[in-house]
Amino acid sequence: MKHKLLILSQDENQYRALIEEARLVNLEFATQPADDVDIVLGEPKPIKAALDSLPALIWAQSIWAGIEPLVGPASRRNYILTNARGVFGRLMSEYVIGYLLAHERKIFKRLEDQKNKSWDETETGTLLGKTIGLLGVGSIGAEVARAAKFFGMNVRGYTRGSETSKHVDMYYHGSNLLEFAEGLDYLLNILPSTVDTRKIVSTALLNALPSHALFINVGRGQAVDESALIEALNQNKIAGAVLDVFEREPLPKEHPFWTTPNLLMTFHTAAPSFVEDITKLFIENYKSFNEGKPLKYQVDFEKGY
Amino acid sequence: MKHKLLILSQDENQYRALIEEARLVNLEFATQPADDVDIVLGEPKPIKAALDSLPALIWAQSIWAGIEPLVGPASRRNYILTNARGVFGRLMSEYVIGYLLAHERKIFKRLEDQKNKSWDETETGTLLGKTIGLLGVGSIGAEVARAAKFFGMNVRGYTRGSETSKHVDMYYHGSNLLEFAEGLDYLLNILPSTVDTRKIVSTALLNALPSHALFINVGRGQAVDESALIEALNQNKIAGAVLDVFEREPLPKEHPFWTTPNLLMTFHTAAPSFVEDITKLFIENYKSFNEGKPLKYQVDFEKGY
Repeated sequence: MKHKLLILSQDENQYRALIEEARLVNLEFATQPADDVDIVLGEPKPIKAALDSLPALIWAQSIWAGIEPLVGPASRRNYILTNARGVFGRLMSEYVIGYLLAHERKIFKRLEDQKNKSWDETETGTLLGKTIGLLGVGSIGAEVARAAKFFGMNVRGYTRGSETSKHVDMYYHGSNLLEFAEGLDYLLNILPSTVDTRKIVSTALLNALPSHALFINVGRGQAVDESALIEALNQNKIAGAVLDVFEREPLPKEHPFWTTPNLLMTFHTAAPSFVEDITKLFIENYKSFNEGKPLKYQVDFEKGY
Repeated sequence: MKHKLLILSQDENQYRALIEEARLVNLEFATQPADDVDIVLGEPKPIKAALDSLPALIWAQSIWAGIEPLVGPASRRNYILTNARGVFGRLMSEYVIGYLLAHERKIFKRLEDQKNKSWDETETGTLLGKTIGLLGVGSIGAEVARAAKFFGMNVRGYTRGSETSKHVDMYYHGSNLLEFAEGLDYLLNILPSTVDTRKIVSTALLNALPSHALFINVGRGQAVDESALIEALNQNKIAGAVLDVFEREPLPKEHPFWTTPNLLMTFHTAAPSFVEDITKLFIENYKSFNEGKPLKYQVDFEKGY
């Protein structure tokens, strides 16, 4: 049976070239939505926009991990949705370890010293022996946990119920959220945006952290009560925050985050979807699809991830 | 047999408290140089200054790795000199990985973007698949190599002759220095200061690097031809440099390094001697000393390390 693929991505040309190179069996390309397109590959938003013009759609492969536009309560669900996982763990680990080291090693302060020609031997901190808490331990969390153990950290994980990573020293669930937060040096949110995770990083959770704690968000902006975080930083209830994701992206110019003290931001750049990685995943999934086998990383529309 | 220990360090009180706590057999403390002091623990410079007043000295434990003041050609050599090793590897790894990630992740650029309220999604780089070259592979180099492999890098090592770390993919020796440098993404100097290593980071070596290469120096400033490095940075022959050590420390205010483009500096703070770590090493060595066994990390006065 022939399959027809539509690519809906800003990197369409790169994806097409790499997929053509792989000479996949039974695969043809479409250049626009059509009645016979049964596979789509791309970013969630353009896929969402094209859904009504894809009556024969059987499988959509998202090139991102986050697929919120496709799993809303009113969304079409009569197709298989797979997202990108597995490829982001290493990149997220680099981001998290990078910003933890920037914090401990006082990398920004040293640059200020240099600008002031001030030879300041203020001692550096270390990751060794510190405790990190992971809000959410999926494939990304497991990879961050592995990196944290490499640097000699203690690792706590807060999950709905699963305890899959062996690099997590201690798991917490359900109502044990504040207990999980107690005494953490670093809190990392990796949770997706769902009804259950909305504003899970609340005033109560931030108050439960020690005042020297650093908060990092690489999950979703919706998981954070933004006003609570701003207040915690303004009142030095925690030492700092590093945010890669926000409730609204791009972050509006008038948002207080831009100038909140001890807040560093990046621009949803922590774990980019490298075309080569995603293509590899697509090819693997296509081969399964063509042979009628189950696909990797299927999204549960009900759960929303 | 009784032993008498003199501590010559700015952290004397901390060291004394921790050593007293260990209740070491046969050990007494001296508070100043005396004829019956046979052990000294401290920084190399005050040890050097006290040598003439310590006729009975048998063993000196340096709390630093670098012991240049004690191994010059005219220096006294009729005692056992041990330095601090083993404890710095993990700290150095943190420093190196931290600055490599700051470079790849454009951590400083993102801060500028934030100040300008500019949502810039410029893609981030990654350590995965990059190649690092280690000038010197002792205990610190081995630990950095281990961290580099963790992040998926290729690792080259340049040594006098030893090939001790299994985390180094390929070793180079002697006249193969420029071959070693070819195609490196990152060059890391960890060499001590000896006659053989002086200005090993020369114009020729810097010219052999790709223009996107980053140079990091955590070894000794003497290993770098400072003028050659300044020229390489001014002419964009390499992408950047991160220096923790310098020919003269503290770096004089008029030194061009302070304002050389793409040069980041720290202030000999990459791997601090934490009192707890050094005390542990001292106690281990003291027990061997008291029992007439060989000590760990003995310095070869001839080689200078």
